[in-house]
Parts: sequence; structure tokens; C-alpha cells
Amino acid sequence: MPEQPLTSPARAPLSNPTIDVQLAHRSIRAYTDEPLTDDQLTTLLEVARRGATCTYSQQFTIIRVTDPAIRHEIYQSSGQPYVDGPKGELFVFVVDLYRNSKIREEAGKDVDPIARTNVFFAGFYDAMIAAQNMVIAAESMGLGTLYLASIQADPRRVIAALKLPKYTYPILGLLIGHPDQRPQYKPRLPTAITMVENTYPDIASYKAILTEYDEEVQEYYDLRDANNRIDSFTNQIEEKLGLGAAMTSPMLEILHEQGLLLE
Amino acid sequence: MPEQPLTSPARAPLSNPTIDVQLAHRSIRAYTDEPLTDDQLTTLLEVARRGATCTYSQQFTIIRVTDPAIRHEIYQSSGQPYVDGPKGELFVFVVDLYRNSKIREEAGKDVDPIARTNVFFAGFYDAMIAAQNMVIAAESMGLGTLYLASIQADPRRVIAALKLPKYTYPILGLLIGHPDQRPQYKPRLPTAITMVENTYPDIASYKAILTEYDEEVQEYYDLRDANNRIDSFTNQIEEKLGLGAAMTSPMLEILHEQGLLLE
Repeated sequence: MPEQPLTSPARAPLSNPTIDVQLAHRSIRAYTDEPLTDDQLTTLLEVARRGATCTYSQQFTIIRVTDPAIRHEIYQSSGQPYVDGPKGELFVFVVDLYRNSKIREEAGKDVDPIARTNVFFAGFYDAMIAAQNMVIAAESMGLGTLYLASIQADPRRVIAALKLPKYTYPILGLLIGHPDQRPQYKPRLPTAITMVENTYPDIASYKAILTEYDEEVQEYYDLRDANNRIDSFTNQIEEKLGLGAAMTSPMLEILHEQGLLLE
Repeated sequence: MPEQPLTSPARAPLSNPTIDVQLAHRSIRAYTDEPLTDDQLTTLLEVARRGATCTYSQQFTIIRVTDPAIRHEIYQSSGQPYVDGPKGELFVFVVDLYRNSKIREEAGKDVDPIARTNVFFAGFYDAMIAAQNMVIAAESMGLGTLYLASIQADPRRVIAALKLPKYTYPILGLLIGHPDQRPQYKPRLPTAITMVENTYPDIASYKAILTEYDEEVQEYYDLRDANNRIDSFTNQIEEKLGLGAAMTSPMLEILHEQGLLLE
């Protein structure tokens, strides 16, 4: 499969090494055999934990998966071929209210707040801030990254494989490794509708306002199927939104089983 | 109030301009009068939209609040004094399933997937990736940042002020500006319990394992109350977890009113 040229690179008025890294983001779905060094791993984890944390509660845990049998389970949960095997480091980001529930139990305090959506969201913020911090640090080292929302296809399998206790939930997987592909930049929705001032925009027809963007998207060749252009954005939303195992699994039921999002 | 010295700076084995910025993160709660330039604003928004997006659905919207009356409403929702007034740019990050619901409606498709937790989480990932991208880009320019989970104290007021339609939810505010304070680095939980390999750790007593960390936390002086050291971590979790308006508002009820997280 031929590599695609890098078209439509993002640009911004200001530039520095960090911004350049961020503008160059692309998801990487193929990695070489080269492992990360210990220094790279230690640095990534140090950066991950230095992000902001809601109410200082630090309600997330990162699990690095090195056991091939456990990684195979995560692959089975995800269904994505690049999750299996040894290429790329695999991390799972866990919203973790269990740790603080145990601290409270040890002190004889109730654990009632744990069931609340507000407290779950606090952990969700923390975990996502840590994850994106790690992504940017990895990309600044020349590594590639891939978020795996695909593990939501079978969260119970992830929970069992990682022996996750109640009050925890694995929200995302993350692959980090040396890129073995050079995908195109994928065009983003126009800022006129995604970044607005003061109030939510009143738009009569998204189809009309997105005509030009829809054409731009159809110029993008997905490396996952390099012989075919992809659908326009609006066609993708019309035909595919909410489809697939990760978007149809009984996530809310499983969150409730974990004692989360109950009120 | 005297500025505190910068103690306990984070370190990592590897260094580059991006990693250095990320390790230097501190929340900034006081800003000078100096506004952001247009180039800074454009760059921040460009970086925000270049992050990963789940299933390419791009389900977030960023609202920049420049109207003082609307900003005052956000302040009232948050209760935090630094949210009011002109200092720092204020952004609200919105999980936005409305846009895609309209695209589907225009095409005569059902909007059933919108109520699903899986699809809401997809938008949550997107919004948080964009927010943290913006935070790091801002810090790389020497700006300070502050996440405002505090807007969850009164989300209905935020929804009304920003005229947010159904199928949207304002998950976080974000202040960005020129720092007018130099707070200490706040120590983080030891990696032995937050960053683990293969399976969730089995820990008999968190209180025991956190003795040293609890002592370290008590050395930290919070600029919000510089005359007093802060409580140990475990004491904070025992006494404060889930307290405060942002952690007790009827968030799940409001999400349901917005047509979200219903299944």
C-alpha cells in the first residue's frame, strides 16, 4: 500500500516546538518493532501525572499492559487488529474512584459521593487530561499515538482482564510507538460552527454550510482502505453515527455494575 | 500575600521544550490585564481542533465568552471570584451531539444514538482532548490556565446563558491569560499506586502507603490561603470528597433534561 502525500497540513499564526507538534497530530495505526526506552516510558508517565486534577482528588490510574495474554484480552475487547501483538506500548486509562473510596472506608467515612455523576466526571476530566498530556509528550519525542475508544466494544472483558475493582471504569486505551506509516492529516470541521462567541450558533442547514467541507473530506484517503476515498462528513454522520460495537455496547449498564453514574 | 518559592519541581529523564512546558504545569488563579493577541487566540483554537476525535464525529463546540453579562452568568454558576470581570479569556467546552443530530434529521435519519452513554462519552473524549491541547499550547506561549469544573455548581445557568440546545452539555470552563501569580507545584500521588503494570494493584492500607506523600502535601502552601498549610491528601479525601456545589448539583438530572446519558 503506497504512503499518501502529506496534504492539507494545519497552520496557525504562531509557532513554537510544542504548537508544531500539536498541529502535526495524526492517529498512527501501524508501529515498528522498536520498543520505547525506559527513559521514554518514565518521562511519559511523569508528564501524565503533572496535568491538572479536579479538586486535587487525582481519580485516575494508568495501567501499562505488558503481559501478552492480557494484551490479547484487550485486543479481543477492542476488535482492532493493531491492538494485538507486541508492537507499540499499550496503556489503559481508568477513571478510579476506588482508591478514594478505600481511603474513606479506612477512616470510617461513607462512600456515598462515589455514585454521583459529578464525582465520576471529576475522574473523567483527570484521566483525559493525563491521556492527552501523554499523547503530546509522545508526539514531541517523534512517537505516534492512537486512542482506543474501541475497548468500549466489550468493557466487561477489559474490567476482568485488568482485575479492575468496583468504582473504576476503563475509559480509553492508548497505543504509543514508533510510527510505521505516514497518514494524511484529516480535515476538521470549519471553526465557524465549532468555535463560536458567547452563544450557541443558530444554523438553518448544516448540510448547506458544510458543502465545501464535505468536498474537502472526500479528498482524504484513509490508509485503512487506500483504494477508496472516504465518505463526506455529513454522509458519515448520517450513515454511521452510533454504529459499531464500541457505540452500541451496554456501557451505562456496566458503569452501574461498577457502582458509578447511579445518581 | 508573598509569592511562594518554587519547590518540588517535577523532573523526568528526558527533556524537550514540550515536555518542559508540561512538567511546569500549575493552575493559575490570578491574571494581569494584558489581553491575548488575535494571533494567540487563533493559534489556540487551531491547536484545539487538531486533536484526535472519536470515530471522526467531532462532537464538541468551544464557546469563547466575551460578553461581560454572559461572563457574569458563568461566574454566578461557578461561584469562583476569578471567573468574573475581564481578566483572562474565558472558554466553555461543550459536549455537542446537537450538531450531528441536526445533520441526521436533515437527512431523515433517527436521532436514537444520541441518548446513548457511548455516544456522549465519544463527545466527552473529543472535548477534553481539545481542552488539554489548548492548555498545553497556552502554557507553551507562557500563558497560564485554569480549568473550571466549578461551573458544574449550576449547569442550568450555564446552559441558559450560552443558549445551549438539547443534546449539548457544558463540561468545563477554561481561563487562559497572563499569570499574575507564581504558585508552587502541587505534589502528585506516588506512581507506585497510580501507574501500574497489567492489573489493578492490591493495597491493604492506602493510609499506610501514603504516609510519606501525606507529609509532602502538608508542606505545600496554597496561594488561596498562604498563611495555612493544606491538609494531607488522605485527610482531604476523608473530609471533602464530594462536597461543594460543583460536586453536589443535580448533574445527572440536567444531563437527562438535555436528552443525554439516558441509556
